[in-house]
Amino acid sequence: MKTLIKVDLDATPESHDCLHNRWHPDIPMVAMVKPGDEFRVECIDWTGGQIKNDDNAKDIDEVDLTKVHYLSGPIGVEGAEPGDLLVVDILDVGVLEESNWGFTGLFAKTNGGGFLTDHYPDARKACWDFHGIYTSSRHIPNVEFAGVMHPGLIGCLPSRELLDDWNKREKELFDTEPDRVPPLCNLPSSPTAHMGRMKGDERDKAAAEGARTVPPREHGGNCDIKNLTKGSKVYFPVYVKDGGLSMGDIHFSQGDGEITFCGAIEMAGYLDIRVSLIKKGVEKYAIRNPLFLPSPLTPEYKRHIIFEGISVDETGKQHYLDPFVSYKMACLNAIEYMKKFGYTGEQAYAILGTAPVEGHISGIVDVPNACATLWLPSEIFDFDILPGADGPSKLVKPGYDLAKVL
Amino acid sequence: MKTLIKVDLDATPESHDCLHNRWHPDIPMVAMVKPGDEFRVECIDWTGGQIKNDDNAKDIDEVDLTKVHYLSGPIGVEGAEPGDLLVVDILDVGVLEESNWGFTGLFAKTNGGGFLTDHYPDARKACWDFHGIYTSSRHIPNVEFAGVMHPGLIGCLPSRELLDDWNKREKELFDTEPDRVPPLCNLPSSPTAHMGRMKGDERDKAAAEGARTVPPREHGGNCDIKNLTKGSKVYFPVYVKDGGLSMGDIHFSQGDGEITFCGAIEMAGYLDIRVSLIKKGVEKYAIRNPLFLPSPLTPEYKRHIIFEGISVDETGKQHYLDPFVSYKMACLNAIEYMKKFGYTGEQAYAILGTAPVEGHISGIVDVPNACATLWLPSEIFDFDILPGADGPSKLVKPGYDLAKVL
Amino acid sequence: MKTLIKVDLDATPESHDCLHNRWHPDIPMVAMVKPGDEFRVECIDWTGGQIKNDDNAKDIDEVDLTKVHYLSGPIGVEGAEPGDLLVVDILDVGVLEESNWGFTGLFAKTNGGGFLTDHYPDARKACWDFHGIYTSSRHIPNVEFAGVMHPGLIGCLPSRELLDDWNKREKELFDTEPDRVPPLCNLPSSPTAHMGRMKGDERDKAAAEGARTVPPREHGGNCDIKNLTKGSKVYFPVYVKDGGLSMGDIHFSQGDGEITFCGAIEMAGYLDIRVSLIKKGVEKYAIRNPLFLPSPLTPEYKRHIIFEGISVDETGKQHYLDPFVSYKMACLNAIEYMKKFGYTGEQAYAILGTAPVEGHISGIVDVPNACATLWLPSEIFDFDILPGADGPSKLVKPGYDLAKVL
Amino acid sequence: MKTLIKVDLDATPESHDCLHNRWHPDIPMVAMVKPGDEFRVECIDWTGGQIKNDDNAKDIDEVDLTKVHYLSGPIGVEGAEPGDLLVVDILDVGVLEESNWGFTGLFAKTNGGGFLTDHYPDARKACWDFHGIYTSSRHIPNVEFAGVMHPGLIGCLPSRELLDDWNKREKELFDTEPDRVPPLCNLPSSPTAHMGRMKGDERDKAAAEGARTVPPREHGGNCDIKNLTKGSKVYFPVYVKDGGLSMGDIHFSQGDGEITFCGAIEMAGYLDIRVSLIKKGVEKYAIRNPLFLPSPLTPEYKRHIIFEGISVDETGKQHYLDPFVSYKMACLNAIEYMKKFGYTGEQAYAILGTAPVEGHISGIVDVPNACATLWLPSEIFDFDILPGADGPSKLVKPGYDLAKVL
Repeated sequence: MKTLIKVDLDATPESHDCLHNRWHPDIPMVAMVKPGDEFRVECIDWTGGQIKNDDNAKDIDEVDLTKVHYLSGPIGVEGAEPGDLLVVDILDVGVLEESNWGFTGLFAKTNGGGFLTDHYPDARKACWDFHGIYTSSRHIPNVEFAGVMHPGLIGCLPSRELLDDWNKREKELFDTEPDRVPPLCNLPSSPTAHMGRMKGDERDKAAAEGARTVPPREHGGNCDIKNLTKGSKVYFPVYVKDGGLSMGDIHFSQGDGEITFCGAIEMAGYLDIRVSLIKKGVEKYAIRNPLFLPSPLTPEYKRHIIFEGISVDETGKQHYLDPFVSYKMACLNAIEYMKKFGYTGEQAYAILGTAPVEGHISGIVDVPNACATLWLPSEIFDFDILPGADGPSKLVKPGYDLAKVL
Repeated sequence: MKTLIKVDLDATPESHDCLHNRWHPDIPMVAMVKPGDEFRVECIDWTGGQIKNDDNAKDIDEVDLTKVHYLSGPIGVEGAEPGDLLVVDILDVGVLEESNWGFTGLFAKTNGGGFLTDHYPDARKACWDFHGIYTSSRHIPNVEFAGVMHPGLIGCLPSRELLDDWNKREKELFDTEPDRVPPLCNLPSSPTAHMGRMKGDERDKAAAEGARTVPPREHGGNCDIKNLTKGSKVYFPVYVKDGGLSMGDIHFSQGDGEITFCGAIEMAGYLDIRVSLIKKGVEKYAIRNPLFLPSPLTPEYKRHIIFEGISVDETGKQHYLDPFVSYKMACLNAIEYMKKFGYTGEQAYAILGTAPVEGHISGIVDVPNACATLWLPSEIFDFDILPGADGPSKLVKPGYDLAKVL
Repeated sequence: MKTLIKVDLDATPESHDCLHNRWHPDIPMVAMVKPGDEFRVECIDWTGGQIKNDDNAKDIDEVDLTKVHYLSGPIGVEGAEPGDLLVVDILDVGVLEESNWGFTGLFAKTNGGGFLTDHYPDARKACWDFHGIYTSSRHIPNVEFAGVMHPGLIGCLPSRELLDDWNKREKELFDTEPDRVPPLCNLPSSPTAHMGRMKGDERDKAAAEGARTVPPREHGGNCDIKNLTKGSKVYFPVYVKDGGLSMGDIHFSQGDGEITFCGAIEMAGYLDIRVSLIKKGVEKYAIRNPLFLPSPLTPEYKRHIIFEGISVDETGKQHYLDPFVSYKMACLNAIEYMKKFGYTGEQAYAILGTAPVEGHISGIVDVPNACATLWLPSEIFDFDILPGADGPSKLVKPGYDLAKVL
Repeated sequence: MKTLIKVDLDATPESHDCLHNRWHPDIPMVAMVKPGDEFRVECIDWTGGQIKNDDNAKDIDEVDLTKVHYLSGPIGVEGAEPGDLLVVDILDVGVLEESNWGFTGLFAKTNGGGFLTDHYPDARKACWDFHGIYTSSRHIPNVEFAGVMHPGLIGCLPSRELLDDWNKREKELFDTEPDRVPPLCNLPSSPTAHMGRMKGDERDKAAAEGARTVPPREHGGNCDIKNLTKGSKVYFPVYVKDGGLSMGDIHFSQGDGEITFCGAIEMAGYLDIRVSLIKKGVEKYAIRNPLFLPSPLTPEYKRHIIFEGISVDETGKQHYLDPFVSYKMACLNAIEYMKKFGYTGEQAYAILGTAPVEGHISGIVDVPNACATLWLPSEIFDFDILPGADGPSKLVKPGYDLAKVL
């Protein structure tokens, strides 16, 4: 497999002109390929090396979130035109030999937060060792599982019109509550924008309007879909000539929702890619967002313990058909359950963010309560976590916890 | 398997004193069983026979939704006390011999509505024939699939305190927009309340405060979780002496979300049940809502086509981390895709409501867009529905559609 | 589902003219159906009621094996002609309400035997209770599993030429060792032949040459393939006008190989069937034996413990690429392993015969040893049967065993 | 992952003292590890580089089969003693970067043969390109699939007693037909024996009695079990001090039976391994052969077309319960079926040898016919290979075939 984009983990992200961290139609292609080509793309971790493999969460606490999501690309595909579908076979996802580990962060509520940040407001960190297809953490005992390696972020460059639309609608949302911490969304931010090979005025202009990489959007982007794993096939809308495919934010594993925000097991790594085109595919198939086919090669966890949540929040307040609340409550239910087996809340929270947990929208029409279910694979634990007549024995090895800020 | 509760499909629901359609702690047990017992419970369809197997959607249009969710029960379990967990093995779910069919309704926006009621506001109906484990509809061509039979609604009677809490919080929500059509939630409604064996003043008092069966709540209830299928094991909190387990609203099949509201394939049927107890299980396992273990016997659809949705709605408005919008957009994306193969919008909508479609909360932290994915099993179609270079051929047999109001 | 063939469990098999227990081209059809028809076929158990639900294996010891495999049929399909393929959808398989139990027999070496009859030569019996999709036995503790209900025996009537070929080749084999006990194969045996509606001389002539139902043959027949379960689709060659489809020997569950011979969980029951035709399908697809597509609804046991066997037998003798020996050795290895957890050999043997165990031909070319693997699903046990550093605890409840001859 | 054993694909196998191609208790350990250690072991392909990535089968025709199965090892594990179980986690299996391809050979009947050598007696070759988890061959059109990478051969050194037993019993078999071509088994053969670091007289003595690597035996060895894939856990009996674990013969993919002999997709590659011990495990669990737990990460092919075979051979001869014949007939049935879609017999044969085909022993007691089933995953084909009313269209691209001897 020829390597199309190579990274140097010892160099800064900014020193790589094959990386960028904003979306903009004018970022120049860093390489051209043909339909049918297969190639390897190396990626740095999403923080660009800000997080270390140690037992101090200070780096998590102080992470600069305007500098994240360094993407490898954009890659041009000969013949790609707006309105086409770019078909991407994710042939393989792997670890870089020099970096056989990953991390999960609970971000501080004041710097990033996460799905349960009101319950777990402090910065914490878990580091993970990789053992082939498996992973385990010195910060979370009695758990080992096979990961679902995937790019958290992948998609094509937006067109000018699409970019304008993004900026407009997000600004409108932002302006409804401009002083909120954390903000409702992240607007363009020029100083830390890395615009690939753009230079000078052109760079500055684009940086001032380049869309942040945080949210998923019509082009895909930061979908954090754990099922875009090795063997899947994705159909991306093309908006600019040559497509401009970029990718990064590789996860060794992640639960549905990536609830700890930096909740996947984040890593540097590589993606092996094959590309082809469906000409005028957007119109042929009425495509608004990417669609994809899952892989035949996904960890088969078949025994789950399933937690329900409804849209009544932890204060007892009734919400109207709100699966955000329902899924949060299902997560909190699962955490309380796991604590009965000896895990700390933070450990349980990190397990839900990293293990191949499934989150289903089970009922969405029975007013006023949406019902969400969280599927926790029971086989990832090296002890029996199912309910029994005698109650749980506290089987988790004591003395371990996520790293704190020292 | 001995039949504990028997129904007569030719008699009215109200003539059965083994049925009830409200939740209240004082509804008398209709039968007592012991831990370890196995028994059959027959159930009428959720509308109590209001919908007919014909080609006219008038019955859907005029359905009386205050009379729905006739539940079989409550069943008392000897020794069950508040704070216990009632363990329910759903050993089997089946069709009543005299009623080998089911229905799906798109409710009118003015009478019930549904997840996509703004797009599909008129009453429509699909009838389904059952062929052993498979089903097909004369209203929807080229689709046949194995169902995931399950009770849409099952749970124990609430305590007085829990009932009061439900009524209070739902009234508060209702009062925020009391004139809304459809209402934000359904408050108690005495005239059509069927309170089982309660009579006279006692019945009237309970009927006036009995909680409607529409939403899922802490006790389970109308969760519409398609995975509570034959072979699953559910752990229900007990709130009153003897537990008081009731069940009904059997579905031959349903997609995650039951998006058409009456979107599952609704049927009369039976449940084979085994019960046992975990004494003081609520405290032992920190239980707020039921939890369950899925069945080893679930239809294995492994090839899916997966649609993404983000929380930007169909008008282009940006919402904040709203998976309700995201899932709606994923559904709309899937419908537009299926229309390219010749289905009407209503047919596609009904397929998403009935086939074992999965709805995942894929990303829930990447502000401002939640990402939901809808997994459509491609094997349920008798033609190739995957994208290809040449675009879709319109392969669906023309001339079929859901029944309209005549 | 209309019932095409009905049985009376209180009457003798011989009193049913809709049953037969030999294969012959001239057995008259008992019913005619059209392509596209769906119908129910009831079946008695394979021994025709010789085995009782009690704790005495005397009935197993004395079973009359010339009277077995009473088949329901033959059923004619309009338009079926020799050379066609008869497509059979097995829509459902179920238990008769009046007979909610099954049995497994270890046949005596002197009367039937079994795969391991040299090790387990005495008659023994296990009775099984059915709990919806699950089964358990009072003779085998700590095991409960979901069955893979299927007909052990199904196929079309042979042509005259095919019947003659069967009789010729089997006679030649028989004659190589005519005094063997048990015999190498079972030749026609007129006295106990039940030829359906045939009478008088015609019956006697056909009975004298009617092929026994024991072996699988080109038409399918007694294949004992556990995967012909509800939801599967089978393509049978047609040899006579109208096809003549017969079926029976229903199993609630069975392991690959049906190693205890009467090793499946044998039961009376029903099959829901849909038929269609592929005209001239034998030539179109070069068919010698039936082929089939498995069901999407099969118990998903994903955690197995896998035992290997090679073709060196228990005396140390080297055989040449003999998977019969290899699979026998894998079975013996599994039995010895299970005995370490407290099971008797007979219990372990019966588990391998009944649970959805898989038997793979793993290596068949590495002279002189074939390698077979036996996949035992570990989830059917209610304790941990995987190997661990401390060795097995004897967790099986003592005091239970298969019924003996009293 | 630290590399414990490194190979040089440009050097001869014999120049590596970390390889050996015979089993003998006295072969010196090439490295020592501790329980809990994780390490990488590189392996050359089983022929030691005799086969080239070209379109000429001359190398297959002339392959020297006395020089095969170069194994990496033996590796000593501190503390391992006879009677222990060596627990091997196969953490990962991968391709060497410099060798991203594999091959399948149909060996000539006069030099190796194969399962169907009577039907396909000539040397032929298919070369395979690897695309991440997928593979395809320029010699076999319209097929691409995810492989089940695994070591064909892995196990511990035998004890002196075990080696003597092997030699004795195989010699006895050999002597029953000493002039057979191919031979019934392969006896020790000194000249091409590579005994690792042994030298001089010691080497010569050991080479004269060292067991060939072809068959699987009690220690595992050349089991060719496709399910020993990445993520599986294997329990090996230990026979000599320090265990002496060796491995090789890596396959990118293989069907059950490895029917073409060199039928897997053969490759050079690496294995990532973790070891631990169960002291006295052989006695604790009554172990004769290795046992293993499968991986949670195996390609999920769920749609199969299943072919049956019985023990009547292609000449019409009746065999007695012979699953070797049954599986052969199922294979021949599958090949004839695939030929109807345009494949040559050799292509179909190679597909059965390489794709993740399953071979089941379905019935083994219904005298005189054993029933074997071959499960062909239909999803590996890029066209519809299921039977239909109109018969197969010849969809395979013409003009391709396996390489012949030029």
